[in-house]
Amino acid sequence: MSTDNRPIGVFDSGLGGLTVVCELQKQLPGENIIYFGDTARVPYGTKSAKTVQKYAIEASYLLTTHNIKAIVIACNTASAHALKIVQSKFSIPVFGVIEPGVAAALAQSKNKNVLIIGTSGTIKSEAYQNRLSEVSESEVTIWSQACPLFVPLVEEGMLEGEIATQIIRFYLQRFQKTQVDTVILGCTHYPLLKNSIAAIWPGVTLIDSGIATANAVKNSDSFEKSENRNKTGHTRYILSDFAENFLKIGQTFLGNEMHHLEVLDFEHFVVSHQSEMSKLY
Amino acid sequence: MSTDNRPIGVFDSGLGGLTVVCELQKQLPGENIIYFGDTARVPYGTKSAKTVQKYAIEASYLLTTHNIKAIVIACNTASAHALKIVQSKFSIPVFGVIEPGVAAALAQSKNKNVLIIGTSGTIKSEAYQNRLSEVSESEVTIWSQACPLFVPLVEEGMLEGEIATQIIRFYLQRFQKTQVDTVILGCTHYPLLKNSIAAIWPGVTLIDSGIATANAVKNSDSFEKSENRNKTGHTRYILSDFAENFLKIGQTFLGNEMHHLEVLDFEHFVVSHQSEMSKLY
Repeated sequence: MSTDNRPIGVFDSGLGGLTVVCELQKQLPGENIIYFGDTARVPYGTKSAKTVQKYAIEASYLLTTHNIKAIVIACNTASAHALKIVQSKFSIPVFGVIEPGVAAALAQSKNKNVLIIGTSGTIKSEAYQNRLSEVSESEVTIWSQACPLFVPLVEEGMLEGEIATQIIRFYLQRFQKTQVDTVILGCTHYPLLKNSIAAIWPGVTLIDSGIATANAVKNSDSFEKSENRNKTGHTRYILSDFAENFLKIGQTFLGNEMHHLEVLDFEHFVVSHQSEMSKLY
Repeated sequence: MSTDNRPIGVFDSGLGGLTVVCELQKQLPGENIIYFGDTARVPYGTKSAKTVQKYAIEASYLLTTHNIKAIVIACNTASAHALKIVQSKFSIPVFGVIEPGVAAALAQSKNKNVLIIGTSGTIKSEAYQNRLSEVSESEVTIWSQACPLFVPLVEEGMLEGEIATQIIRFYLQRFQKTQVDTVILGCTHYPLLKNSIAAIWPGVTLIDSGIATANAVKNSDSFEKSENRNKTGHTRYILSDFAENFLKIGQTFLGNEMHHLEVLDFEHFVVSHQSEMSKLY
């Protein structure tokens, strides 16, 4: 087996994708990773599909200038709107977070009653709902709920306590009376609320797309050939804008320190690569 | 007195500035208004000062292409970081939301104990704090508190009820034991929480910068000459991106319907006016 030292490129609209990086680091410790967080244009969730597709192509293009071997779209909104287009425009393997989350939910749900929670944009896109209907071999009952207050709750560091509990109850309590036995955390911020959700809703299976996606990357055909073993990989972080609280939040998401952090004038990058990128839009 | 039919240009990072438009419409019903909401790049509050200055110049430049007679920066973050630079680059009067809010607070506070609340970006910028120290003739005690959950709360439509009450208490309760008698709502979203804040904290004076800013525009020397009277003005809305929920939220902010709504490819606008704008940065 040859080793392929090229990094895995990962991008997200901001810092949420670091929960995916965290899982990639755990499951593929030998791999180098390059992370791009488009913090200058965060969030993608409130933007139109067309804009998100453009942003996803620009982020992917940036990553490919770093000689990567795969792209992980660690952002639910971008996975929903742009996975296919990115796959069609770039010749390396491209992974989204939706397919792995759906596969894990179907594998783990006993009664095939699955609730998808996410930002308004993700829920409205129906990407999870469509994928679930598409791949389920048996009947599956799909429930969905947008939880717009979860992201600010996490970014405010309120991972537990009375306010977190009340907000979680506000969105999820009514599903406890249903047949739902599995919940897809369809937003990269939500795994940080896992403990609080589990405390309110004991017995439910929570699907963390970060774990599912890292698993999918690890087990993919295209990847097995290139997996780095017997090495300790390093991760490089590129942000399109820098604000102080990013470091604090980022490290919570990542579970450890962000070394090799750099800020890129992405707008300038986009303008100066306009001619190459215009072929990709 | 001559009438000057040119519109007043107003911009914000998104839709919050519509609370300022609402007050302008009430106080200056004869004026035409052109509103630009940079919804493709919302929010500004998490972005660096340099990025916000660039965005503010671009938004101002866009407005000036519509032959406006004044610019209102209806965004606290942009007022904090970019008022002076916009004033220095454009030859028409430019108003921010901070100065009027501070003046109103000083006029209305009896014991000169003023609390400023806003997004993390606004509070950290210390723009309100500095302005208060600058213009206060007597001793003033300044308190400040960032309330990052207020914006998503408003955007989720939770203007009252148990969760709103708890979140307001979480941020503000401790100030009820202090000498604070006046609170500056240092974010254009916050006026929508006015009733809930007043219910929890009876007797406190809440300063709505929308009202204060519209007042400042109306009473400014430069403006009195050009105020349109005996007419019904109309408002035009330009957004840099369109998502469905904008309409719903926008109309809550505005208190009435948004007619004349258009979406502009602002990124394209910026690129194609690069040479004119590069002189302004």
